[in-house]
Amino acid sequence: MTLTALEGVPEVRPGDALDDVVLEALAGNRMDLVSHDVLVICQKIVSKAENRFVDLDTVTPGSPARDLASICDKDPRLVELVLTESKEVVRCVKGVLIVRHRLGFVVANAGIDRSNIERSGERVLLLPLDPDASATRLRDALSRRLGAQVGILVSDSFSRPWRMGVCGTCIGCAGVGPLSDQRGRADRFGRPLQVTQVAVADEIVAAATLVAGEADEGRPIVHVSGLESQFFTAAGPATQLVRPLEEDLFQ
Amino acid sequence: MTLTALEGVPEVRPGDALDDVVLEALAGNRMDLVSHDVLVICQKIVSKAENRFVDLDTVTPGSPARDLASICDKDPRLVELVLTESKEVVRCVKGVLIVRHRLGFVVANAGIDRSNIERSGERVLLLPLDPDASATRLRDALSRRLGAQVGILVSDSFSRPWRMGVCGTCIGCAGVGPLSDQRGRADRFGRPLQVTQVAVADEIVAAATLVAGEADEGRPIVHVSGLESQFFTAAGPATQLVRPLEEDLFQ
Repeated sequence: MTLTALEGVPEVRPGDALDDVVLEALAGNRMDLVSHDVLVICQKIVSKAENRFVDLDTVTPGSPARDLASICDKDPRLVELVLTESKEVVRCVKGVLIVRHRLGFVVANAGIDRSNIERSGERVLLLPLDPDASATRLRDALSRRLGAQVGILVSDSFSRPWRMGVCGTCIGCAGVGPLSDQRGRADRFGRPLQVTQVAVADEIVAAATLVAGEADEGRPIVHVSGLESQFFTAAGPATQLVRPLEEDLFQ
Repeated sequence: MTLTALEGVPEVRPGDALDDVVLEALAGNRMDLVSHDVLVICQKIVSKAENRFVDLDTVTPGSPARDLASICDKDPRLVELVLTESKEVVRCVKGVLIVRHRLGFVVANAGIDRSNIERSGERVLLLPLDPDASATRLRDALSRRLGAQVGILVSDSFSRPWRMGVCGTCIGCAGVGPLSDQRGRADRFGRPLQVTQVAVADEIVAAATLVAGEADEGRPIVHVSGLESQFFTAAGPATQLVRPLEEDLFQ
């Protein structure tokens, strides 16, 4: 498996067509996109293209947001947006606000971002409205224009319980099976495998996020080649990676 | 970044020298190992080389193990071993026993494994005694024999709260910085980065685990090249990836 971050991707603006952005970046990097390649796309450029910016000055925090904001010591307008984007508050203590996002992911600040945004003093960027749909649209457009069956993964960096540091995580998926089901398969000695499901999309996105980088040299598109064809057979949405609440044995 | 699983690695036996195993596998795959390459080694072959096998017939479960075993519906002898390997039981319900391992990791069954073990009817395999020390020994031996400064990551597949499927996770590290510290760095618009620490070793291991495979075709050694040199400057142990209990805001 080879992961290559595309260089020289220009700043994405609201209304930009991501398939154009991708094809120009591939051409600029003299890279081909062929069937069974995957592109990992940082959620930030998806959100920017979809104009998921919100000016905090337009937000009026309600009473629940103001109460939580005083606990976690965050801007009450930001907390109001976090609540709007969430189903449930998982944890609120000083400096930390972790929620179950409306899409199901458990994530700090509902994934709302203030970095790598121009004139970001009072502007924030929400996650894409439906990252699986965004991935599917991009995949369909690229398939149509290139005649190749590729996979698209939308990435974000999530904090994790019990582990230090953020790790790239898949929040949108098209053309790839996010989970590989090993049930019924045997180990090398014929014993049933204990591991039954592998988080394929998260494992790809983790490494892609490392290659992309977090800082000012950020490269929001990573080309991945060399994946086994089995990972393309049971394509599905990234929401398959969300553990249902009733199965969440870690809570 | 390119990840390549080495083919044809023979079954590792207690007492085998891992540097010999690695060098023979590299030669058999006609691959070089040079400075700033990383090898990701599945914990299972480290444990086998260190003879971390335990015959369940030799284990006498105590009262706490028998009580827990009746709740989680597991072999009381296995539960006894899990407790011996652990500091704390995090969760015990039917079919699930999650503990804080003596090394700090929160992991199901203390990482004790029954698959991919020959004659495993009554035999289980514990995690390496000290995976950071194992990684350091292997790194030192390879550095001495090859004259190259390489990184060694020991991998396991962990379940995760809130996410479906297992994901490759780093439990031993030498020669690589497990966490990349971005504090003080700026985004492309000069704003301080919100993300301050990146779990570099977990991001590498995640993809390597995918390339290695879980099933009978398991390839326990993955060669990783093309990592940025910055990741080798602050080498440290994988225990840096364990979030201290007092910071664990997800509990």
